[in-house]
Formats: sequence, C-alpha cells, structure tokens
Amino acid sequence: MTDTAPRRRGRPSRAQATEGPDTRERILRAAREEFSERGYEKASVRGIAKAAGVDSALVHHYFGTKEQVFEAAVEVVFAPALKAPETITEGPLDGVGERFARFLFGVWENPATRTPLLAVVRSAVNNEAAAAVFRRLVSTQLLRRVAGHVGAPDAELRAELAAAQLVGVAMMRYVIKLEPLASADVEQIIARVAPVVQWHLTGP
Amino acid sequence: MTDTAPRRRGRPSRAQATEGPDTRERILRAAREEFSERGYEKASVRGIAKAAGVDSALVHHYFGTKEQVFEAAVEVVFAPALKAPETITEGPLDGVGERFARFLFGVWENPATRTPLLAVVRSAVNNEAAAAVFRRLVSTQLLRRVAGHVGAPDAELRAELAAAQLVGVAMMRYVIKLEPLASADVEQIIARVAPVVQWHLTGP
Repeated sequence: MTDTAPRRRGRPSRAQATEGPDTRERILRAAREEFSERGYEKASVRGIAKAAGVDSALVHHYFGTKEQVFEAAVEVVFAPALKAPETITEGPLDGVGERFARFLFGVWENPATRTPLLAVVRSAVNNEAAAAVFRRLVSTQLLRRVAGHVGAPDAELRAELAAAQLVGVAMMRYVIKLEPLASADVEQIIARVAPVVQWHLTGP
Repeated sequence: MTDTAPRRRGRPSRAQATEGPDTRERILRAAREEFSERGYEKASVRGIAKAAGVDSALVHHYFGTKEQVFEAAVEVVFAPALKAPETITEGPLDGVGERFARFLFGVWENPATRTPLLAVVRSAVNNEAAAAVFRRLVSTQLLRRVAGHVGAPDAELRAELAAAQLVGVAMMRYVIKLEPLASADVEQIIARVAPVVQWHLTGP
C-alpha cells in the first residue's frame, strides 16, 4: 500500500474531490477506517464522506447504500482471501485440509489482516445487514471455490463444516482468548485441525 | 419460570423493594433483559435498577460492578450448561463426542435458550469485559469438566479444539446463517461433527 498521508491532511480542494479512481480509493479507505473503528451500526455514510473530504452524495454515487459501501470496504479486507483460494485449491486434494488451515491462520496471525477482519466479524455478529455481506463474500469468494475443488455432491456443506472448525478456533483464540488455546503454538494447532478440515472435505 | 408480571407493573412499593431473595431475583431478571436487548456496552446499572424498580445502589449492593451484574445474569443463561456437564461426562468415554455435540445443539436449537445465548455471544465478541466473563464461565463450568472426564495431559487444549468445532458451526448456522448449513437437519450435522469432537477429545 502506497503512503498517501500528505494528501489526506485536511479537507482536499474541489479539484481533488472530483470523480476519479483516486477519490473512490480515498472514500474506500475512509469507509474501512470508519467501519473498523465504529462497527457497522454506528458508522455512517456522512462520517465516511467527512473523513474522505467529499460530499455524502459522492459516496452514494460511487457505492450506493451504506450496506453497499460496507460490502466494498469488506471486499478490500478480503482481498487476500480473493487471491488465496488458489493457494488452497491448487495442489493435491489430500493436502487441501492443511492448505485451508494454513491460509486461515495466516490471515489471523498477521496483525495487519487480523484487525480489519476482527472488525468485520464484530459487525457481522451484531448486525443482520453486515452478516448478509459477510455471508455473501465468504460463500461466493471462499467456500464455493473450495467446494468446487472438492467436487463431491455435498461439497458445500462439507466446506462449511470444515470452515466452522477454523472459524471456531479463530473465535476462541483471537476473540474470546480462551487459554491454553490463545497462547498455543500455531503449528501445534494446525497439526490438530488440518486433519479435521481434510476429513470434512474429503472423508467418508 | 413463575409469572410475576403483575408485580412488575410500575414501580414497586418501598416494602417490595427492600432486600430479599425476591428483590435479588427481580434485579437479575431485569439485568438479563437489559443485557439481552441492549448488549453489554449499552446496558447500564441504572437502566437495570429502573426496570427492577429499585435504586442503583441496591443493584451494586447485591452484585457489585456492572461486570459482576453481567456475570450473575449470564450465569442464569448458563444454568442449563451448569447441569449439562454431567450429561456430557456421565457415560462411556467413547460416546463423549456425541454427548457434547448433542448438548450444545440442544441449547442452540431451543429458542428459549438460543436468544439469551446469542445476546451473550454478541456482548462477548464486542466487549473485553464481557469476553472475560464468558471466558471464565465457559472455561470453569464447561470445558474444565469435559477435560477432567477425558483425563489426558493436554485435555484442556483438546476440550477447547472440540468446543471450537461446535462453536464454529453455531456461529455459521445461527449467527451468520450460511447456507446450506443454516437449513441442514440438525441430526445430519451432529452425525458429521460428533466424530470430530470425539477425535479431538480422545483421538491420537
């Protein structure tokens, strides 16, 4: 990510606030910060517009409703996930459990991706509109691809049960911080959950 | 639960608001409703006191801080869980996975227990103090007993990884409502997760 801090000091001039990929990018960044700090319910299009130094109408023009702004902002957070499915689905099928587990813990162990993801999870747990966005993205971008790789008739349910093991560990380790799980070595955890993920995806 | 609605209409008289198990019970019920409706962060001791028709000082007298009121209210929600560990830990060890899974889905499938549990989960995901309460209760009341039943040296971590599978399914089925998991038959889900829970608890 390039450092565009100088441009963000104070309200930009009219010329900077006109339409363009730059403005869109600035609004998205402001949205990501607003949703991350305040959560879905408390965040507002007005607040996002103010932080980006543009009019609310311009935010609506680019993204539509608050839910759609959220979806666009979350898609940025999920950008690593959008590329990741290939790292999960490329390779022999008998290693998909470990690849899926490694991908998910990679996202959670990295503070740069953990913080925004945590904000998205919190919003999704608290708000139905945010949950719908989360559901759409996780389902279409991640789980459907994993299911396609597996190819069984019940592959979607299998992919969800596999993801549930990983999601549950993430909740208890990074959100609730239950010990000894929260302090356990990540390799030890991967060694215990990868066979479960594999079994869900390709087992009997 | 006995219906005490008539007593709760309007502010009770001084005589009713004096100390006693009845007042304590009324405060607890008000706390449960307040936390359930507003979540931990927005709930206040003042609001709980008002709903119970007592002075805030009396709430503090009985329970202490807001965090302690929350803990007491959550303990009521966890009342079935406090009895449940026996249904999990009584019986042959090779059936513990299915008993654990059946217990958890029993709590989640029943709307009477799902609603307050959902409120507790939402609070715990959003607030560190609420997460600490949740952590304490889940750990001491549920997981430590399951770990004791299993008896292995790494039994606590095993119990947490087993619980993580169940927690993850609950999150995705009841909170995020991801399909096909959200509409799947609960017996089908138990059939797929009980072996995983069993493997975590007693496997190699």
